Amino acid sequence: MNIAVLAIGDELLSGDQPDTNTAAIARLLGSHALAVREAACVGDREEEIADALNRLATSHHAVIVTGGLGPTADDRTARGAAKALGVPLSLDPAALGQIRQRFQKWGRPMHPRDEKQALLPARAAVLANPRGVAPGFQLRHPKGADLFFLPGVPDEMLAMLAESVLPVLLAKDPTRPPTAGQRLTLFGLAEPEVETRLDQAALPEGVTVAFTVEFPLVRVKLTATGPQAQVLVDRAEVAARRALDDYLVALGDQTLAEAAARSLTAAGLTVALAESCTGGLIAKLLTDQPGSSVFLERGAVTYANRAKTGWLKVPAAVLARAGAVSSECAQAMAEGIRRTAGTDLGLAVTGIAGPDGGTAEKPVGTVYLALASAVDTRVERFRFTGDRSQVRLHSACTALDWLRRAAIAQLAGQGSAPAAP
Amino acid sequence: MNIAVLAIGDELLSGDQPDTNTAAIARLLGSHALAVREAACVGDREEEIADALNRLATSHHAVIVTGGLGPTADDRTARGAAKALGVPLSLDPAALGQIRQRFQKWGRPMHPRDEKQALLPARAAVLANPRGVAPGFQLRHPKGADLFFLPGVPDEMLAMLAESVLPVLLAKDPTRPPTAGQRLTLFGLAEPEVETRLDQAALPEGVTVAFTVEFPLVRVKLTATGPQAQVLVDRAEVAARRALDDYLVALGDQTLAEAAARSLTAAGLTVALAESCTGGLIAKLLTDQPGSSVFLERGAVTYANRAKTGWLKVPAAVLARAGAVSSECAQAMAEGIRRTAGTDLGLAVTGIAGPDGGTAEKPVGTVYLALASAVDTRVERFRFTGDRSQVRLHSACTALDWLRRAAIAQLAGQGSAPAAP
Repeated sequence: MNIAVLAIGDELLSGDQPDTNTAAIARLLGSHALAVREAACVGDREEEIADALNRLATSHHAVIVTGGLGPTADDRTARGAAKALGVPLSLDPAALGQIRQRFQKWGRPMHPRDEKQALLPARAAVLANPRGVAPGFQLRHPKGADLFFLPGVPDEMLAMLAESVLPVLLAKDPTRPPTAGQRLTLFGLAEPEVETRLDQAALPEGVTVAFTVEFPLVRVKLTATGPQAQVLVDRAEVAARRALDDYLVALGDQTLAEAAARSLTAAGLTVALAESCTGGLIAKLLTDQPGSSVFLERGAVTYANRAKTGWLKVPAAVLARAGAVSSECAQAMAEGIRRTAGTDLGLAVTGIAGPDGGTAEKPVGTVYLALASAVDTRVERFRFTGDRSQVRLHSACTALDWLRRAAIAQLAGQGSAPAAP
Repeated sequence: MNIAVLAIGDELLSGDQPDTNTAAIARLLGSHALAVREAACVGDREEEIADALNRLATSHHAVIVTGGLGPTADDRTARGAAKALGVPLSLDPAALGQIRQRFQKWGRPMHPRDEKQALLPARAAVLANPRGVAPGFQLRHPKGADLFFLPGVPDEMLAMLAESVLPVLLAKDPTRPPTAGQRLTLFGLAEPEVETRLDQAALPEGVTVAFTVEFPLVRVKLTATGPQAQVLVDRAEVAARRALDDYLVALGDQTLAEAAARSLTAAGLTVALAESCTGGLIAKLLTDQPGSSVFLERGAVTYANRAKTGWLKVPAAVLARAGAVSSECAQAMAEGIRRTAGTDLGLAVTGIAGPDGGTAEKPVGTVYLALASAVDTRVERFRFTGDRSQVRLHSACTALDWLRRAAIAQLAGQGSAPAAP
């Protein structure tokens, strides 16, 4: 089945808001072996909406439309759909009932403007919005394509896609060939090096390999189609894991932070953080994970030197002699936070994220990482490239990878198998 | 001038990677009064790339293409472009020279696979890539449209767009009517309420108003075209500011965190943070801002109770009696971090972000915020809806707004004008 996605909104074409819905739709459909073949985006003009709908309905079996269903005057998707099909708009009683119920449930008064969201093209079937106000709707295009209209608010859109659209698509296409896929996330290897290693790994015939860079990570997607799809992808994954070794940090949807959190939890290790240039980013990424309180005891964002000497017990002499951005300071921070928090590991980052503060000796991008354990303290100097946010992100990912590797080493030392990424 | 953007990559259509390039291109062009009228996205298949190029070149004056120029075998944009124009691919000496120079500059060996990035359609003009390896190129389509091909890596793409594409587009279209725009960011008012207030504000005729929700913020865009564009938008902005009052938290590209940072800096206030459920998110958002060390003395991520009693001096009796998620604990945290850090303000957040940990009395989404100053401590209980990341983000934005308002009140008290958002 040939599916297209159409995102509608001036804010998307002006760049004021990035379109995240198309990717979310593609992910959910893809996990059910339904592929999006084309995506398009037009603004809030009736004619352009109608033209895009007519074009996509001609070349695809289904079109999933997002955005432009809201209460404000610039939401014109229902008008565009009515124009494309040459039908009038009318106030849909079912849609209006759903809008009223939503506000009753929230215990909030309905604004008169909210009624506009029940003005739908004639013959539209209403799709319930379990999370928000604007109902969606479904139409059959004269060319035979099914058109689904969903709101632009991401979590509302996604819930309606799963509940109201996906079952219809799956029922329409019961004979689609099985497909299978697996995604691998790499940290610490450049893209051509990843491809070379995978070429040498001799993956099974019929497995497609695709690469993307998502700074500072490289992502690889393995895909296969046909009755043997899952077997082929499983075999490819085994070969890829061997070839990519411990640069492979995560599988599937897992993020690097999730992988680090999972390894730390499995190893039963506790951690405390001392962040200078990353300013809470590492703590944020770890606490994004539910259950992070099991391993994260505390974190310190120590911008001022007084915080470094007070909380982390960095000797004033170290700051005076080597400065806050130095190997000695990173080591003292890691050991200090570990002692104060009483954790298995103490991780510290200090550096110059920019745009200012660089010197000839320590240019912007100079970052020291330190990881203290009961046995020793590892300290390393890095020179990251890019702007402030890239230096911070590269520092944080390196720190998460250190934690992940420390946890895996601990598990291996305990005689357990290393935690799967 | 009628401009289209085409993003290429299976990873975009599978949703493995969201397309952020289209929005970035639209923003840069928009700031020069060049509007993107249509965006499209296709996968890494030669035929589909060629079809999309031919279609967009027929209906637009310029097409900006991103992605698929990399070293790996799944990068097929140059092939698709050659097919669309019916020309062969050949190794471009200028492009190859640029690739070699890039690796020399980095002091890294060039991988043999990197040579593929110099295989360009015949008659292509090479566009230099100042930040990465893959060069871009420019072609004239037989229908007259200018086609620009840029890499998919966002910062490389954006640098090349600014340096190599924008000047060509501006030179092509010297007579475009002036347009002006202003963006307003609101926090604490629902979308229909924002629209009602703006309707009542009687904005000048000819100004278009567009709304978008970017949880938990509402964004408004004011636009006008024609010789009076800037004057009209300026007048609309004045009226909108009056109507939206202090719910207006930021103007233009500014984020809420940036607005808070700017107000704190202007007011000369110092801050220390004590974060429980937000786990470093507030610190991260504030330290995203260059120069944040001026006002942020330190931050504590106190997940464990031992960290709350140790660093924040929360009395053990408070934790025993009221629990870590309580008004008393939030107040003690804010006052404790303020005293320890010696700052003007101490801000604390404690709550239940979920998915687990909720009770009948304190369901998931229950969050206490406290702000301690030399004068008093304000504490408030919130009940945020949504998932873990939404509860955390709503908490963090509320905290940033409190800091912003405290700084503006301080400035007003000093007799200065309130900091412009």
